Amino acid sequence: MKEPDFSISVLGEPTIQMSVISEKQDVWNTSYVGDDQYVLYDIAVTNGKSEAGIDRSSLIEKAGPRGKVYFEPAKVHAGVVTCGGLCPGLNDVIRAIVMTLWYRYNAKQISGFRYGYRGFLSKFNLPVMELTPDVVTKIHRLGGTILGTSRGYGDCIEEKVDTLERLNINMLFAIGGDGTQKGALDISDEAEKRGLKIAVIGIPKTIDNDLNFVQKSFGFQTAVSRAVDAVDSAHVEAHDAINGIGIVKVMGRESGFIAAHTAMAINDVNYVLIPEVRFDLDGENGLLANLERRLEQRNHAVILVAEGAGQEYMEDSRTSDASGNIQFNDIGVYLKERIREYFKKKEIEINMKHIDPSYMIRSAPANPNDSTYCARLGAHAVHADMAGKTGMIISLIHSQFVHVPIRLAISSRKRIDPHKELWRDVTEATGQPLLLQERRKKPC
Amino acid sequence: MKEPDFSISVLGEPTIQMSVISEKQDVWNTSYVGDDQYVLYDIAVTNGKSEAGIDRSSLIEKAGPRGKVYFEPAKVHAGVVTCGGLCPGLNDVIRAIVMTLWYRYNAKQISGFRYGYRGFLSKFNLPVMELTPDVVTKIHRLGGTILGTSRGYGDCIEEKVDTLERLNINMLFAIGGDGTQKGALDISDEAEKRGLKIAVIGIPKTIDNDLNFVQKSFGFQTAVSRAVDAVDSAHVEAHDAINGIGIVKVMGRESGFIAAHTAMAINDVNYVLIPEVRFDLDGENGLLANLERRLEQRNHAVILVAEGAGQEYMEDSRTSDASGNIQFNDIGVYLKERIREYFKKKEIEINMKHIDPSYMIRSAPANPNDSTYCARLGAHAVHADMAGKTGMIISLIHSQFVHVPIRLAISSRKRIDPHKELWRDVTEATGQPLLLQERRKKPC
Amino acid sequence: MKEPDFSISVLGEPTIQMSVISEKQDVWNTSYVGDDQYVLYDIAVTNGKSEAGIDRSSLIEKAGPRGKVYFEPAKVHAGVVTCGGLCPGLNDVIRAIVMTLWYRYNAKQISGFRYGYRGFLSKFNLPVMELTPDVVTKIHRLGGTILGTSRGYGDCIEEKVDTLERLNINMLFAIGGDGTQKGALDISDEAEKRGLKIAVIGIPKTIDNDLNFVQKSFGFQTAVSRAVDAVDSAHVEAHDAINGIGIVKVMGRESGFIAAHTAMAINDVNYVLIPEVRFDLDGENGLLANLERRLEQRNHAVILVAEGAGQEYMEDSRTSDASGNIQFNDIGVYLKERIREYFKKKEIEINMKHIDPSYMIRSAPANPNDSTYCARLGAHAVHADMAGKTGMIISLIHSQFVHVPIRLAISSRKRIDPHKELWRDVTEATGQPLLLQERRKKPC
Amino acid sequence: MKEPDFSISVLGEPTIQMSVISEKQDVWNTSYVGDDQYVLYDIAVTNGKSEAGIDRSSLIEKAGPRGKVYFEPAKVHAGVVTCGGLCPGLNDVIRAIVMTLWYRYNAKQISGFRYGYRGFLSKFNLPVMELTPDVVTKIHRLGGTILGTSRGYGDCIEEKVDTLERLNINMLFAIGGDGTQKGALDISDEAEKRGLKIAVIGIPKTIDNDLNFVQKSFGFQTAVSRAVDAVDSAHVEAHDAINGIGIVKVMGRESGFIAAHTAMAINDVNYVLIPEVRFDLDGENGLLANLERRLEQRNHAVILVAEGAGQEYMEDSRTSDASGNIQFNDIGVYLKERIREYFKKKEIEINMKHIDPSYMIRSAPANPNDSTYCARLGAHAVHADMAGKTGMIISLIHSQFVHVPIRLAISSRKRIDPHKELWRDVTEATGQPLLLQERRKKPC
Repeated sequence: MKEPDFSISVLGEPTIQMSVISEKQDVWNTSYVGDDQYVLYDIAVTNGKSEAGIDRSSLIEKAGPRGKVYFEPAKVHAGVVTCGGLCPGLNDVIRAIVMTLWYRYNAKQISGFRYGYRGFLSKFNLPVMELTPDVVTKIHRLGGTILGTSRGYGDCIEEKVDTLERLNINMLFAIGGDGTQKGALDISDEAEKRGLKIAVIGIPKTIDNDLNFVQKSFGFQTAVSRAVDAVDSAHVEAHDAINGIGIVKVMGRESGFIAAHTAMAINDVNYVLIPEVRFDLDGENGLLANLERRLEQRNHAVILVAEGAGQEYMEDSRTSDASGNIQFNDIGVYLKERIREYFKKKEIEINMKHIDPSYMIRSAPANPNDSTYCARLGAHAVHADMAGKTGMIISLIHSQFVHVPIRLAISSRKRIDPHKELWRDVTEATGQPLLLQERRKKPC
Repeated sequence: MKEPDFSISVLGEPTIQMSVISEKQDVWNTSYVGDDQYVLYDIAVTNGKSEAGIDRSSLIEKAGPRGKVYFEPAKVHAGVVTCGGLCPGLNDVIRAIVMTLWYRYNAKQISGFRYGYRGFLSKFNLPVMELTPDVVTKIHRLGGTILGTSRGYGDCIEEKVDTLERLNINMLFAIGGDGTQKGALDISDEAEKRGLKIAVIGIPKTIDNDLNFVQKSFGFQTAVSRAVDAVDSAHVEAHDAINGIGIVKVMGRESGFIAAHTAMAINDVNYVLIPEVRFDLDGENGLLANLERRLEQRNHAVILVAEGAGQEYMEDSRTSDASGNIQFNDIGVYLKERIREYFKKKEIEINMKHIDPSYMIRSAPANPNDSTYCARLGAHAVHADMAGKTGMIISLIHSQFVHVPIRLAISSRKRIDPHKELWRDVTEATGQPLLLQERRKKPC
Repeated sequence: MKEPDFSISVLGEPTIQMSVISEKQDVWNTSYVGDDQYVLYDIAVTNGKSEAGIDRSSLIEKAGPRGKVYFEPAKVHAGVVTCGGLCPGLNDVIRAIVMTLWYRYNAKQISGFRYGYRGFLSKFNLPVMELTPDVVTKIHRLGGTILGTSRGYGDCIEEKVDTLERLNINMLFAIGGDGTQKGALDISDEAEKRGLKIAVIGIPKTIDNDLNFVQKSFGFQTAVSRAVDAVDSAHVEAHDAINGIGIVKVMGRESGFIAAHTAMAINDVNYVLIPEVRFDLDGENGLLANLERRLEQRNHAVILVAEGAGQEYMEDSRTSDASGNIQFNDIGVYLKERIREYFKKKEIEINMKHIDPSYMIRSAPANPNDSTYCARLGAHAVHADMAGKTGMIISLIHSQFVHVPIRLAISSRKRIDPHKELWRDVTEATGQPLLLQERRKKPC
Repeated sequence: MKEPDFSISVLGEPTIQMSVISEKQDVWNTSYVGDDQYVLYDIAVTNGKSEAGIDRSSLIEKAGPRGKVYFEPAKVHAGVVTCGGLCPGLNDVIRAIVMTLWYRYNAKQISGFRYGYRGFLSKFNLPVMELTPDVVTKIHRLGGTILGTSRGYGDCIEEKVDTLERLNINMLFAIGGDGTQKGALDISDEAEKRGLKIAVIGIPKTIDNDLNFVQKSFGFQTAVSRAVDAVDSAHVEAHDAINGIGIVKVMGRESGFIAAHTAMAINDVNYVLIPEVRFDLDGENGLLANLERRLEQRNHAVILVAEGAGQEYMEDSRTSDASGNIQFNDIGVYLKERIREYFKKKEIEINMKHIDPSYMIRSAPANPNDSTYCARLGAHAVHADMAGKTGMIISLIHSQFVHVPIRLAISSRKRIDPHKELWRDVTEATGQPLLLQERRKKPC
């Protein structure tokens, strides 16, 4: 594995001494963070050997307010954009950015781009929204994002930077997933190329919790809480029927974190299927035969499936089905069909209920724990931008707020390792077997 | 600072090869944790210098299932006890211990002591409760602890060990705060002195989140969520009245973590008072005059106070009040009285509402995030006990489950450092001033 | 309209003086209900004329404990059965029946049939479950029914009565919809024919709230609360996207009560579609064109549709589609397809989200208001059965608990009258237009 | 009992034909309510005799939109005021009034008085708040009232009417309890005396649910839900301690409806104490001895007490306590002290927890069922005011929205009759005995 590069980009030397803000100075003076403060990234030690040295390549810069800042508050014009799918906590982050700029730094010109990166593009003709404390004061009670959002438009970098120039925006907060952060990095690079002093900070958003260098993504806990409600319903439906089967499909395109945490929280799940772990449907050890045995013994079963699980089955299906039925892209629907067929052929009555709570999860307001986290993420993003940092995200690693270069953060995805503790604890909680026909095969 | 000693005690050499459990072997074989796996404790690096070396004193042993265990499952008789005040998640932990012993290790003799350490003492005549999967299957939906709890009785070590001997218990799970863990350690020591092979593992419980070497205590997130509800009510009451003042008192005897996190989650708190930060009531910069100025400008205010804050005021009161009025021990009530007097003297009408949600916080069922956490804490406690570890707690540090010696864990308390980031972020969120008459005084 | 017949059937003369139960007698003596107590059913008066006289045909018998009962408590063997789809509150009703029999009447032999009417039939071999206070004490916290449920098997009356005879059951509580109640009536009739003294009381269950002579069905309020959550999500999703459209499908086969009440509770619904009110999709005044106009003006829209709405469209579809694609039976899916086509043809981008919360609604535990209601329904059912009443349901009319003959209760369905106040208030809340091409057509 | 007088006051003959509002006419034309539509008030029939005739004195006028209205929409200036303590649903009612005036009647001049009746009085100098759809669109998510509230100032009728004259307000919506409604009636009378055409409609607010002629007051269901949470906590605390006692005090000055409904919802209450039912503390049958017996048998107990219960004890206490300690006005605190003393004297250890959730109940946002109800109350109030009705409240009787003269509504309070079904069902649910020393005494 190539060593990660934690080097941080900055616009220039921060020179503006943070003015002493009246009554509060004593507290704040003492809690500035220096640019020489880091945390060690790799903390695992096996057999006395650690991969952690104290050279630059293993140190992550601590986030937090600096004693000297790069931007003069009165000259700041900040832009905020939210991109991609909804996620609990978006409004909390927007709110924290506005409040921190306004009250902490006295920077009062803040514009919100509408509907993701489209808001930068003239063809959509979407004027920016002025953001003030009055506008944002109660928005953390609402799900979604007051700015609106959309997917795509990560390109058109030049027009975007044109727009920033036209609006005299010198500080950009990009809230979104890795596509969004890639776009933010491109903006930062283009601005640098043009000699513009625009600081670009990302706040990483991934309801799937699948970003590397992000210990736990905002909204993830709220998502798990809502997924638990859906599993609870599926369990009640399955339990109270003859041969009841509940299927719950949750988010997780490339990683099964929501499914894994949900299963451990509620204890009513019997099978968790995630993208990282292969499973057979057919054969004596496959899901279908296993399900049949469970129904015989316990009369009901709950299956929790991440949307990215079992994709190989649906490719096969697509091949065999000339009409290209698009519903087969949905693993929940696919499983339902396969299970129905299996038991129909065996003439065994089943009562199957399929729940897809995805939109109800995405659109939830953040729970209090996520709210606290989002409030701090937003504040740290402002501290970073004010200090002239650029091209990086705010992250939490080993419970410390840190700066991670976007280039590094988006270089690979976080996935569940089936050989490590999280998946072990999940399978112990569900008691599920390896759903593989040949035992010697690797589980993934 | 003396270096912490992370050395772990064990009963003896684990020799029993974990039997291959049918279908699941492939997964589990690969995820055993070795006794040579550690995590670095101190990860802060400043100016290129770290306190972290890779010598024994800075390494914490990783928790998790071992490939060889010390106890033969069929001979295990486990005891479980819950002590001290209620805390969300107690039932989740009990459930996880029972389920993991039963299904993972096939150890099926489990006894629950009733009402804390009293359950060990013959004079209370409290027979143990047999714990099986059927008994615990749904208890994580309920607040409190099915075993009951009580305070005190940390002593009488000899009788306790007599009881364990009499019941042939060779494995004890002690769920409680630092007093409880101290008692557990004494039991472990006494057992060793007698040459008994009793493995004692603690699961640290502190709703205040004030244990060192515990990143976040179980139930803490649920507690914050419930505290948020109370602050929300206080804010509505204050906001909708003329000169409305809402006071919410939350737990936190020696540290203000609940108050701090609650304030950041809800954004409606104007003053957070915690044990770690001194505040003046009187004088131009004191709370009372400050409150008056806020009411003039904003017409309402919300004060969130941890129970241990401002104790020095109540000592004074006690001294001056010969009758020793006990209600003055309650900082919420004390503040209410002082505020009432202040505005009465000034003939300013106020509408004050005091909310004490403590019992509604303590008795809540765990939220899904705490449930997941408790499930894993309980499972790791069983892994530790089965491996013959003793005199230690299960903890989460840098997001890793680890073993921490009880001796080390209870040696000091965790408190909020007013000069560090948590308190900085809180005061920025509330916008509260230093409430100190003389500015040059230290804030604590 | 033929006059309703409110006459009540009884097994015989109640003769057993309710024994004075120790401490409680004074209260209870005074609150027995006499068989001569009634409430007036029709209370509407227009222009000085009422349909209400005080003759037998307009009076409904009051429910409640009688001073003399028909069954000797020690000889009671009660049976309880839950049938049909899940509904919040089933466990509350079961609990109330058991608790009232046990503690109020000292009748302690209670059997629960498993999985609906199947539990009566030998071919399914489902032994009854013994019901005691210990078994039911906490079940009101859980959704679903501890007895399990199934659909159908309303027939086989003779075998069912054979089963009751074999078990010596003389009191039956049937919790279910109108099919279930019809089955209960048939059992009552068959028992009478055989000269058996079996008292059969129904507790009407209909999450759609569509039973006549039932002011508000149990579980309905909980259902509306959960539907509100789904609409809230749909609104957030629609509002935060470009041309966002949220579709929520809720229960309501023949009547739109859940949709109607949900729309008034949350105020974010723009179109409510119910079975009682015809709507056009096409044409200038149809839903599609209307939706287009709304998106132009407001950029988002929320549609709340009851499952029974617009069935005529799907019949047409079925006719034209030779392969009989079953998914067209789902009005939510059908609308989604039609809307997608419409805007695709117009080359207008839309972002549509379809939420079907039905299973999450059905399986919810009762909220406190429904719990109170279910507790009282169950208790009144026991009072009726003990008094020897048979062939009737417990209902709430004009906020009074009453006895309604099953024959009468199932004779017709309750539906929303589009010319009356409920629908008027709904359309005023949503501001929705008549979605009919020709204006002179009646709306239904 | 004197017959109630249901006669309605009106400002004059409604003459303005409701204009046909574009698309919606068909629906609305058909659902106007005529002034000749009534509902029968007294529906009880015993032994063939009813108190209900169809003469004027037993008929209540139906509420709803009239085909002709009194006010020309363009000339309407409406005022809204909220008075007294907080109650869930206030914002919902304000919202419904504004939305109905604006969209249904096209009446767009709406002013909100601030902080109750104080907003009418020049000495408080509180300018009115302009109310528009934008201002109120999301307020139903918030507890409390955006207008603020205060107690008192029911007098100063002349200045209030001066204020209305000065502002040219011709339509007043008064949301509050019986004091508020009395004030509203006085305003209506004074306006009539001056020959002003001001229509005054009340929306009755009483969290205690103690207004006569109001079937169920808005916010009551939400209040019960929140009270259930508190009892749940008290039960957990009591159950998990040795001799645990939980005391929950809820609202209910003169009637115990919240306590009664809460007890039936949650089933964990052992003693409900309400103002309507006398109870002894001392003596063999008193609460204290009874509690002791229960602790012996069951080890825990939960007491739910309405604030107005047992006031006679505290008068006695006040008499005997020269220092006039005001805390004895709180029955929760008083009970706690008496119970503590009792068991201390007997040297029995108890663990007592006292929870007062009142402010958390009052300030809650309305639950969906209350939201629907409030939405309809507000709309009906507007219909009444537009039709020129005055001096009356909107109420729900026998599930119908009706007009009740304020004079009649405030003439007496609704209380729980201990001899009727509600209290009977409560005592059966709790199993509580008569807590009276002498058995022949009446329970109230």
